[in-house]
Amino acid sequence: MSSTTDIDALIEQMAKLPGLGPRSARRAVLHLIRKRSLQLIPLANRMQQVAATARECLNCGNIGTSDICGICENEGRSNGEMCVVEDVADLWAMERTMVFKGRYHVLGGTLSALDAIGPSELRIPKLMDRIATENVSEVILALNATIDGQTTAHYISDQLGDSVKITSLAQGVPIGGELDYLDDGTISAALKARKSF
Amino acid sequence: MSSTTDIDALIEQMAKLPGLGPRSARRAVLHLIRKRSLQLIPLANRMQQVAATARECLNCGNIGTSDICGICENEGRSNGEMCVVEDVADLWAMERTMVFKGRYHVLGGTLSALDAIGPSELRIPKLMDRIATENVSEVILALNATIDGQTTAHYISDQLGDSVKITSLAQGVPIGGELDYLDDGTISAALKARKSF
Repeated sequence: MSSTTDIDALIEQMAKLPGLGPRSARRAVLHLIRKRSLQLIPLANRMQQVAATARECLNCGNIGTSDICGICENEGRSNGEMCVVEDVADLWAMERTMVFKGRYHVLGGTLSALDAIGPSELRIPKLMDRIATENVSEVILALNATIDGQTTAHYISDQLGDSVKITSLAQGVPIGGELDYLDDGTISAALKARKSF
Repeated sequence: MSSTTDIDALIEQMAKLPGLGPRSARRAVLHLIRKRSLQLIPLANRMQQVAATARECLNCGNIGTSDICGICENEGRSNGEMCVVEDVADLWAMERTMVFKGRYHVLGGTLSALDAIGPSELRIPKLMDRIATENVSEVILALNATIDGQTTAHYISDQLGDSVKITSLAQGVPIGGELDYLDDGTISAALKARKSF
């Protein structure tokens, strides 16, 4: 290890990031030290800016730099469609497709009996409020195709009843996917949901 | 993508680190924003400290926080052995073993005809100076087992001639290695260098 505590401490802190381990943290820190003025200093400054300004949107739970995020503030996106996602990362993934033009609601996780996460630990009460007040015509449940995700989708669907149209993402073969590499569940879901060619 | 430029810019900067891409940078940034006071702010502060203090040791090329690094300053490590490595990362890897008790010299790369890197682009003249003045009894060439690494080792060995004992790291089967997964070159090197059991 290097002889100096500051650099060691930085490596240790970097190694705590998801996707990095001790070895890749060392590589990243050496890289940053070599590119001190081009990368290390701007990165440190940007982190401080983000630490000072990043916050959760009080309405949808997206992360942005104002109390109400740009999507919630955008009147043009108030088209009655509300996409429910588990996590901010899922919201960002949806946004990258540039296909969805409505609003979002981030739950902040899924119901989980094992982890003792009930509806009030998530942003489900806020979702019900929004659906009641924001003139929502369709709720799109874009939750992960995991057991917890689907349990959460069923719970929300039960709560909403027939008050609003509820849809979920289609399941099937991913674009570019090869059948041979897909799991059985995906193939049988795609077969059940087959459509005329 | 998120609606805010600061967060986007931070993701873009993180994605430039070795070992991180756009997806892992997004995950890391979301993680940091969620752990603002425990991780994001301390990390930003530490980066600024390192940016202010990290420097190359004027003697050996190690990265530390003073003009002469702790290893070069440690009189106890002046035992006549000098380990020559390509990169600071290699020096740190050697130090983690806690086996070598001598001093280091970091070349900062390897000779490379293709990239027009000659001896004076590396810290080879400084190495010759140190060997002449620091009472060195053995030079251990711990360069990578690549063509460029071995070319550099041969060049240094030629320059030093018989003035000092020159050794290199043993080549063979790595500890825990399975023969079936090793390349032919390693196996034949290990066979040539076989020793009595």
